[in-house]
Amino acid sequence: MGARASLLTLPRVADHRGTLTFGEAGAHLPFVPQRVFVIRDVPPGVTRGGHAHHRVHEVLVAAAGRLTVTVDDGTTPVSYTLDRPATALYLPPLLWRWESDFSADAVLVVMASTRFDPDDYITDRDEYLRLVRAR
Amino acid sequence: MGARASLLTLPRVADHRGTLTFGEAGAHLPFVPQRVFVIRDVPPGVTRGGHAHHRVHEVLVAAAGRLTVTVDDGTTPVSYTLDRPATALYLPPLLWRWESDFSADAVLVVMASTRFDPDDYITDRDEYLRLVRAR
Repeated sequence: MGARASLLTLPRVADHRGTLTFGEAGAHLPFVPQRVFVIRDVPPGVTRGGHAHHRVHEVLVAAAGRLTVTVDDGTTPVSYTLDRPATALYLPPLLWRWESDFSADAVLVVMASTRFDPDDYITDRDEYLRLVRAR
Repeated sequence: MGARASLLTLPRVADHRGTLTFGEAGAHLPFVPQRVFVIRDVPPGVTRGGHAHHRVHEVLVAAAGRLTVTVDDGTTPVSYTLDRPATALYLPPLLWRWESDFSADAVLVVMASTRFDPDDYITDRDEYLRLVRAR
């Protein structure tokens, strides 16, 4: 088995001007983000993801709204509800995951440890299971 | 005068599963983010910011909703409306800025080129003007 998913608690400053939630590389984030992406406007009932990564580490944050991330390491799927910026989900490599139950206002921010590389994606479930079971 | 603010257009992929907007260090972002923060829940009428940075570069993105960023280089203030993830505002150092007109659903994501350093903030307007006029 590879490393496991874990929830990170990010510092949050709230005052009369609103809220500010932050993550710093090396302090709260386990890597320096080389790529940041924003997913939104996901229609009701849509599931995204359905892949794993060979080498990429990711941190997922619900910057607005609510969504569910399900992580399956090849044995037991575990679901995480993300519904606030201060609760981030860290996914090391070799975890199969998908995102579902996006609320209409959901905004998912993902920080990734590398630039985009299509060869890093494992999109075949059987190949994934062979890889994790061989470890 | 220092460098100027500029709008960046980030790549956006839209399909039946929603939209994905991304920025990569070295390709779309002028630096590697060492700190990412999310500002939201800003009450109506509130203005945030009112400072400049000695060394920190920032990229600002409205991940949801709408807000206005006003940048003042010591001569002429310029206002930018951010209302979609694909339009990001790059702020090199030594630009005085403030954020206003947050819509109720606004989510501002900021990527910064360094970890937090309170000594990097210039919060005195007269000191700022002295610095930029001395350049």
